[in-house]
Amino acid sequence: MKHYKLGFIGFGNVGRTVARLLLAKSAELRELYEIEWSITGVATRGMGWLSRPEGFQASSLLSNSVDKSLGLVRSTSINEWLLAAQPDVVFETTSLNHETGQPALDYLTAVLKSGSHAVTANKGAVVYGYEELSKLAADTGKHFFFESTVLDSAPVFSLFRETLPAVKLRAFSGVFNSTSNVIIETMEAGRSFDEGVKMAQELGITETDPAHDVDGWDATVKVCALAHVLMKLPLKPSDVRREGIRNLSTLRLQAARAEGKPYKLVARAKLSENGSSLNASVKPEQLASTDPLGNVRGTSLAVHFELDTMPGLTITSHRPNLQSTAYGLLADFINAVRE
Amino acid sequence: MKHYKLGFIGFGNVGRTVARLLLAKSAELRELYEIEWSITGVATRGMGWLSRPEGFQASSLLSNSVDKSLGLVRSTSINEWLLAAQPDVVFETTSLNHETGQPALDYLTAVLKSGSHAVTANKGAVVYGYEELSKLAADTGKHFFFESTVLDSAPVFSLFRETLPAVKLRAFSGVFNSTSNVIIETMEAGRSFDEGVKMAQELGITETDPAHDVDGWDATVKVCALAHVLMKLPLKPSDVRREGIRNLSTLRLQAARAEGKPYKLVARAKLSENGSSLNASVKPEQLASTDPLGNVRGTSLAVHFELDTMPGLTITSHRPNLQSTAYGLLADFINAVRE
Repeated sequence: MKHYKLGFIGFGNVGRTVARLLLAKSAELRELYEIEWSITGVATRGMGWLSRPEGFQASSLLSNSVDKSLGLVRSTSINEWLLAAQPDVVFETTSLNHETGQPALDYLTAVLKSGSHAVTANKGAVVYGYEELSKLAADTGKHFFFESTVLDSAPVFSLFRETLPAVKLRAFSGVFNSTSNVIIETMEAGRSFDEGVKMAQELGITETDPAHDVDGWDATVKVCALAHVLMKLPLKPSDVRREGIRNLSTLRLQAARAEGKPYKLVARAKLSENGSSLNASVKPEQLASTDPLGNVRGTSLAVHFELDTMPGLTITSHRPNLQSTAYGLLADFINAVRE
Repeated sequence: MKHYKLGFIGFGNVGRTVARLLLAKSAELRELYEIEWSITGVATRGMGWLSRPEGFQASSLLSNSVDKSLGLVRSTSINEWLLAAQPDVVFETTSLNHETGQPALDYLTAVLKSGSHAVTANKGAVVYGYEELSKLAADTGKHFFFESTVLDSAPVFSLFRETLPAVKLRAFSGVFNSTSNVIIETMEAGRSFDEGVKMAQELGITETDPAHDVDGWDATVKVCALAHVLMKLPLKPSDVRREGIRNLSTLRLQAARAEGKPYKLVARAKLSENGSSLNASVKPEQLASTDPLGNVRGTSLAVHFELDTMPGLTITSHRPNLQSTAYGLLADFINAVRE
């Protein structure tokens, strides 16, 4: 049995659901992987950098009733916090800045430098810091994992890392932004763009600023993360031809649906003939039902890969929920320590 | 750099394509995985048990021109052959007996007992010998891998083994038999069952005896393999309610297609409430296009998983070909030795 001290940077919906899943899966983790754990550090904007070397009660953390007496340490910086909490694994789930990847980048750098595994739900960190963070992880013999950043819990990065050795990825396409899909489907049903946004917000799937969804930023950052990691080409968001869904009228969407080729916000990247550059786009496209992404609906997400060794491989995550995202982080934790 | 001696039991289409892929990927294997290889043993019904300790020329094997002079050893049994060829990894691709898993079972047992990794394309061996062969492999510190048995090259077994730790699989469904799908689609286009069989045979996708496809045996054995490995429940083909596609008339198929809910041969397995038994079937079902398996067409294959940690995960392999199957075996080889 091995005991792991866990730290959380960010403890909103995703972080909390990870903690809940850890509690629910405690027996399984012990039996299958000989993993025991305690949460020794939690940091949020509201609470600051808290640690408790002998471990927080996870249930108290979840009910917001941190016992402020005995053994609680308040740090003023991440490095101080890392020293106090001594985490073996840190879950980083702060909210994303699409343009810089900050503050996640700085946090993950500090985490890896301290000799902890870093698990993030932050796609910006992958786009803006993949090389540096991977190199840091390799230097310390730790892992920098980020499975939940593209398709929530559906394996994408670990799929290539662990199950698809010696393949060349030639192209991929994806339906990566469920907010856009929900808006499109709401409008197909005759309602307005704003009603679509509201619907997506009620489902809890929008980014903090829905503009990130409807203007294609979310999908663009995901394309960059995939290209970066799976094709080793450091694609930046500005390299992606990006068109959101704001210009789609209800009429046009309904006509496309009636034609049997409804619109979706589709992300694509394709290697050039000589393999040195990528042609990448995010834009609304009409997809026939025979298209590999043709039956991705509602809040579902999917990615389709074209490989040298197989004509096409599609991974579809149906209606992922918060628990799915949290599971992506839990899987990263287990995969980081069981290797 | 590590050198691996490879043995082939069976050297038909699949075995040959593995050899071709090994040749094509030689540089990649060296660069990415420090793997070098030579083929020291080949066994087929026609040639017998051949080995050449210093390695065959792969290109000669592929052109059927085995140099019969210098260093060629002819053995009379698999054990003698294993002693002579000393393989580190054996690819087993003999043809399948659905009822017994033989002779693959005996071959794989001998291979693992000799201390070699065993990689098979033989689903019967998984259904009838999973426990014994896995135990043998564990005892010798080797691997028994069989990724290509269900969806050709699409990761299924390694997906759960490597990328989905601590999940519980509650149910799965799949379109596992492309021959049946091709026949159904041929009949939807107004042609006969026999023309459908002929079409599938021309595509090279049928089992040696097409009855195995159209009577649901192939899909049934795949359900059993998945249940066995992923749910740890030793389901036998006789436990699966099995109905093939012979009773589907052209008229009925065309009506279903017109209705937007075409028939497919669908395999299903679902855990009972208490998790101790399975309800499993293989039968023609009408699927709406919104079904997770709804847009699997032609020779494509797919499996849909329902997990405790995510609502639904679908893996679709589009139009897999011989190279895809061969890649499944190559991936098993790499995954076996890189761990």
